[in-house]
Amino acid sequence: MYLDAAGRAPLHPAAIQAWNAAQAEGWADPRGLHAEGRRARLLLESARESLADSLGCRTAEVHLMASHTAGLHGAVLAVARARRRIGTGVVASAVERAAVHHAARFLAGGGPTTVPVDRHGRVDLEAWATAVREPGMALAALQHANGEVGTVQPVAAALEATRAAGVPLLVDAGAGAGHVPLPEDWDLLAVDPAGWGGPAALGVLAVRARTRALPAWPEDEDAWSPGGVSVAAAFAAAVSLEAVLRERAEEDRRRRALVDRLRARVAREVPDVDVVGDPDARLPHVVTFSCLYVDGEALLVELDRQGFAVGSGSACTSSAQEPSHVLAAMGALTHGNVRIGLHRGTTAEDVNRFCDVLPAAVARVRGLSGATGL
Amino acid sequence: MYLDAAGRAPLHPAAIQAWNAAQAEGWADPRGLHAEGRRARLLLESARESLADSLGCRTAEVHLMASHTAGLHGAVLAVARARRRIGTGVVASAVERAAVHHAARFLAGGGPTTVPVDRHGRVDLEAWATAVREPGMALAALQHANGEVGTVQPVAAALEATRAAGVPLLVDAGAGAGHVPLPEDWDLLAVDPAGWGGPAALGVLAVRARTRALPAWPEDEDAWSPGGVSVAAAFAAAVSLEAVLRERAEEDRRRRALVDRLRARVAREVPDVDVVGDPDARLPHVVTFSCLYVDGEALLVELDRQGFAVGSGSACTSSAQEPSHVLAAMGALTHGNVRIGLHRGTTAEDVNRFCDVLPAAVARVRGLSGATGL
Repeated sequence: MYLDAAGRAPLHPAAIQAWNAAQAEGWADPRGLHAEGRRARLLLESARESLADSLGCRTAEVHLMASHTAGLHGAVLAVARARRRIGTGVVASAVERAAVHHAARFLAGGGPTTVPVDRHGRVDLEAWATAVREPGMALAALQHANGEVGTVQPVAAALEATRAAGVPLLVDAGAGAGHVPLPEDWDLLAVDPAGWGGPAALGVLAVRARTRALPAWPEDEDAWSPGGVSVAAAFAAAVSLEAVLRERAEEDRRRRALVDRLRARVAREVPDVDVVGDPDARLPHVVTFSCLYVDGEALLVELDRQGFAVGSGSACTSSAQEPSHVLAAMGALTHGNVRIGLHRGTTAEDVNRFCDVLPAAVARVRGLSGATGL
Repeated sequence: MYLDAAGRAPLHPAAIQAWNAAQAEGWADPRGLHAEGRRARLLLESARESLADSLGCRTAEVHLMASHTAGLHGAVLAVARARRRIGTGVVASAVERAAVHHAARFLAGGGPTTVPVDRHGRVDLEAWATAVREPGMALAALQHANGEVGTVQPVAAALEATRAAGVPLLVDAGAGAGHVPLPEDWDLLAVDPAGWGGPAALGVLAVRARTRALPAWPEDEDAWSPGGVSVAAAFAAAVSLEAVLRERAEEDRRRRALVDRLRARVAREVPDVDVVGDPDARLPHVVTFSCLYVDGEALLVELDRQGFAVGSGSACTSSAQEPSHVLAAMGALTHGNVRIGLHRGTTAEDVNRFCDVLPAAVARVRGLSGATGL
């Protein structure tokens, strides 16, 4: 049972269908001056038009990138290059994705000016307004929603502050696109098709025409993504976003009810547990909780053994087993963390089965580590 | 009839099959700590192992990138970063792919030290040896074979000169991999799956363990390709390369015979034509010729109208209609250029039909531009 759909959902059927159609029709180089090239070019252009439509911007403002991470890196570097006379400073919330922090560190060794968050992971707007007014700021970055804990940020208020300071705002909507309505106003917006059931290894970065940005890497005909992206992936991303937006209202209702049940049962049935993230202003499909006296990776392995695939902010990847900077910034437990992401295929039955199994799994891992009865 | 398979071949059946299998099995994040993540990770690792095997190197030396262009950019920037105390100079043949020239220009405004070629496009080895001995050279780049005109370069001799000078050599084997045996010795090797019927929007860069290279972009868990690449694309690339290598000897024989016929008929039947590229040391599937008094784009459009998709060095892309720097460096005609790339589906019948139609198509375009009887 796959419950790790925060970040990467199983491919939406519309994505698979679109992919196969585009692969068959659009395999040629979209730059070719022949019928095959034209077909590929048309598919790519219609993908960009559809994405622009879904994101609420113009086609010319949509850039396709090699991954969501590449989109965030590219956004930070390109804006900083265009604003190099102003400085290389970046303001970012403490819970931004690592890619934003890494890009800021690449620009200026010290990394971003980090704005703290409250215990729900919501950015401190006063500190934010102060930070963006500091001199030398090339860019500010605030995520729309946090993919680890689900908290939605006050983007409109943050944008007001950056506008007043004359600093462009990058909104990382990688976790929320396709799941919650996107903010209408921004200077740069990055979304991740893999998050809504579209293809992985593709990023979509929208840059408002008025926002100055200069690619900060070697020149290419595809200025934003040297060598170009997969036409089939772009088309599948666009078509699957249209599909999830049509299903959104219904899926929102359905999954919020499941998440409420999950939150309640976990809090009630697992001893010494802390359900984190904003209980109201949140993504409809993400639940995160931390268990005291439990090693996160051990719990993931135990759940995997029982057939449940979940994620974790304290053991989120196979190689980088560092405690989550998001949980640390919220002052939450950084160990024993489990993140559940519900997708369109997740049923009430699935959630019940998981809740039935969880307390014993936690107890077992606690027992193995000698933490019983602490 | 698709005759533009120099650079991008139609997908090999093995690539489609592998893609579909890997998509179904390996859609999850390969960094996930669960069964789904492990399956994706295994597919990705087996793809890298297979590619290493096909390229003659170790798995740890294989890096997957967002495109062949990204692979070439990345190779130049990463070696230059590791050797920044030595300098930012790049030596490149005059007929290297634009991506190499662009990356060199990004490093140091003036671009690479360009080594001339003879009329067949073969690099001048004496000038090469002199150039790589100049102080401040971070890297030298020589393609294995030229994708526009088919000429194979004397890589072994060029490597001897770079070794003597202590400068690492990047070999761009994007045009030849899967078609001709690759050079056995190199410091960095870049190949392009799209060139052998594998997926587009994926690059493979091999960097010998002894060659110093430091990613020159923001940090990520996937150090060479922030955000990672498509597992399905990687798997399809590996499996299709194995397939074309099994078919290589037979396809080499078959296509060389077709190319010989094409070269002979074009030279005989089209007036005022110049068949370019080395007649012997060349790729088995690429033929390029230039027609006097003809606009390359007009000829492509005329051939496309008659159902033949071909490429051109003088109108090679829809947006960058600049004359080919490759043809210019060879002292060949830079206009009226047609490039034919034969793939595994191209038959003798196809070649005959093209040759039957070509003389009248050229005459028609010449007539339209008033060039008849010149």
